[in-house]
Amino acid sequence: MKAMKIGIAGLGTVGAGVMDLLARNRDLVTARAGRPIEVVAVSARDRKKDRGIELSGARWYDDALQMAAAPEVEVVVELIGGSEGTARELVMAAIAAGKQVVTANKALLAVHGTELAALAERAGVQLAFEAAVAGGIPVIKALREGLAGNRISKVVGILNGTCNYILTTMREHETDFVAALGDAQRLGYAEADPGFDVDGIDAAHKLAILAALAFGRPVAFGDVYIEGIRRISALDIAFATELGYRIKLLGIAVESPEGVSARVHPCLVPLAHPIARVEGVFNAVVAVGDAVGQIMLEGRGAGAGPTASAVVADLIDVARGRATPVWGATAASLSAQPAVAIGALSGAYYLRLMVVDRPGVIADVAAALRDAQVSMGAMLQHERGAGEAVPVVIVTHKTTEQQMRAAVERIAALDTVMEPPALIRIEAG
Amino acid sequence: MKAMKIGIAGLGTVGAGVMDLLARNRDLVTARAGRPIEVVAVSARDRKKDRGIELSGARWYDDALQMAAAPEVEVVVELIGGSEGTARELVMAAIAAGKQVVTANKALLAVHGTELAALAERAGVQLAFEAAVAGGIPVIKALREGLAGNRISKVVGILNGTCNYILTTMREHETDFVAALGDAQRLGYAEADPGFDVDGIDAAHKLAILAALAFGRPVAFGDVYIEGIRRISALDIAFATELGYRIKLLGIAVESPEGVSARVHPCLVPLAHPIARVEGVFNAVVAVGDAVGQIMLEGRGAGAGPTASAVVADLIDVARGRATPVWGATAASLSAQPAVAIGALSGAYYLRLMVVDRPGVIADVAAALRDAQVSMGAMLQHERGAGEAVPVVIVTHKTTEQQMRAAVERIAALDTVMEPPALIRIEAG
Repeated sequence: MKAMKIGIAGLGTVGAGVMDLLARNRDLVTARAGRPIEVVAVSARDRKKDRGIELSGARWYDDALQMAAAPEVEVVVELIGGSEGTARELVMAAIAAGKQVVTANKALLAVHGTELAALAERAGVQLAFEAAVAGGIPVIKALREGLAGNRISKVVGILNGTCNYILTTMREHETDFVAALGDAQRLGYAEADPGFDVDGIDAAHKLAILAALAFGRPVAFGDVYIEGIRRISALDIAFATELGYRIKLLGIAVESPEGVSARVHPCLVPLAHPIARVEGVFNAVVAVGDAVGQIMLEGRGAGAGPTASAVVADLIDVARGRATPVWGATAASLSAQPAVAIGALSGAYYLRLMVVDRPGVIADVAAALRDAQVSMGAMLQHERGAGEAVPVVIVTHKTTEQQMRAAVERIAALDTVMEPPALIRIEAG
Repeated sequence: MKAMKIGIAGLGTVGAGVMDLLARNRDLVTARAGRPIEVVAVSARDRKKDRGIELSGARWYDDALQMAAAPEVEVVVELIGGSEGTARELVMAAIAAGKQVVTANKALLAVHGTELAALAERAGVQLAFEAAVAGGIPVIKALREGLAGNRISKVVGILNGTCNYILTTMREHETDFVAALGDAQRLGYAEADPGFDVDGIDAAHKLAILAALAFGRPVAFGDVYIEGIRRISALDIAFATELGYRIKLLGIAVESPEGVSARVHPCLVPLAHPIARVEGVFNAVVAVGDAVGQIMLEGRGAGAGPTASAVVADLIDVARGRATPVWGATAASLSAQPAVAIGALSGAYYLRLMVVDRPGVIADVAAALRDAQVSMGAMLQHERGAGEAVPVVIVTHKTTEQQMRAAVERIAALDTVMEPPALIRIEAG
């Protein structure tokens, strides 16, 4: 059997993990791929760095683009990352050279996925990216192939393990965001500059990809509404627990007659929803299809092992010749449904205020809600010492984002309301 | 685009569901399959029966084997069921005629899967069976393709929705097995003759398939140890809840240096295990891989919609030419690891006795456990009225099945023990 010859660009945690997995499970991968998968070329910035992996069998390239052009390389594995620069140039060069491409790059797919899919389609090559979303969970394969007979109406996911770890830690140890973030950084779950994760960008990249696959629509990262978790307080997590909810950073994409709504923001999720129990660095994706009903996939969304698992699965697909258009159907078969703006969202809300403990305060708040036609479902208020600001929590019935924002604006302006109100959407499933 | 022409044999719930789904999502299926999928032939027993589906576009065959031989049929969809008889003959005839085959038949794959895979391999055709295990959950695809880079060490599943519904109902409504079964039968979740489900056969068929895929081993239904749920009492469910467990019928397959152990039996599962929360007719499969860690997939395991979802996904794979050997690798690449007998199992146990409330009883029980070298972890006993038999529950530390059985045999023979002891294995994850 002729081996499939691959070149790996980027030898960080994931690149080293892929090399290690291919070596460790060599026989098994050969059996499942139908032929050996051989790393014949590698490229990274620093040749001298000790990565704890055997590189002697592979030719070294200082320049990833040169590696893509090398005739002995049949498949280019892009593990550099980032939507621009070398990663993008490499993938475009590889496609142009008629090479199969496997990548773990969510930013690249989310931002340039339409263009890259068109290039791959024209060149007749695979552009595989299972590792781009939810690490080792085969969610791309599940949506694009496993549920391909379904009209998907909704996808909900915990797509960023860093945020889920921070939120879980805040709840379990009753700490605030800054302490939990520090904890995550010490354990290597968060970067020194955590913005990409905690501000929701990473989750939004992944959601844009899932929404495109689920709804057969060109990927549209720019249409994703994004809020991160920096403003989630220990107090809100405690109140959520008291009310029977967990706070999760969710990516939610919904198809309706009006179009597609895609958003990433913190949510209160009722404990009865299976995604509420997904804790720590675990990821999960729930999809709702017209034939299959609700499906949930759960597992580790990051790390060398899970990401390598997804990359090697893609390599085995390529070796077997199992080909699928990037977005599940050819570009001509995708339909550009309109994006639904966040203002048109309808749902229930959690609103937490810090108020002066004085007669009439609640009446003012209630009047503001009434005037915006927001109906209250529940209210929660605990005793505090005299003179302290008192937290008041209101859970609304279903309303629109627009009405809710109008109400919150008026409430925030009340002089009895001491801090900017905390407003968190409720995702009931 | 040339349509892919299929013939469907068997027009029960699932067959009608497939026809309905193909018609309803025609455009979407065409886009994802790359060409239309056209039902050109159907076969069932009774032509006159009203199935609520449009059959006029398809040629009717009274004889499914004739349909398989018809030149216009490229793909044969076998939805008749059963490991022998027409279903088996049809699949063999279709393969012999060089047709692609899609089936939902777990019994057939579990019992004759090795032979059928060899035939399909020789004929160079696909034999796809996503619908055979866990209905709409794409678990075959996940194990065989999505996790193909992993050495899988364990697969645990809730594989029979009927049993899970009965056990959930018993707990929620505090009823006994017979009442819950009656409930399931009224709702159409259980057959008039429920043995196939409640005695664990159906789950064992599915587990045999999963074990073969996970471990790259020829399917071996005969090696599966099987116990059903008829002997689970309301009392045991209540005790399990009190101890922080759920009782589930699990299929468990484990690979160890000694070989492969595959078994279906009721288990106590700690509430912290994600599978413990899977209730009602839902199915779930947990797989543990060396790279990916633990993955869980959850969804509806039966019914027209979920099963049709899986069948249509297989048809789309066939239309796209995405081919995989039946057992994930060619027959020559599978390794026949030895089966590990149930006696060699090691784990913790739940033991419930009904004893006479008399001094010395517990001492006798404890002595029997000690003599078999079984170590007790916890004991639970509640007050009862005088003269009644008293339930005593013992949770053991890890021991072997052999030692446990020896102890139970001696305990059962004590004249203070009133009923055959209830022994349930504990699955800790």
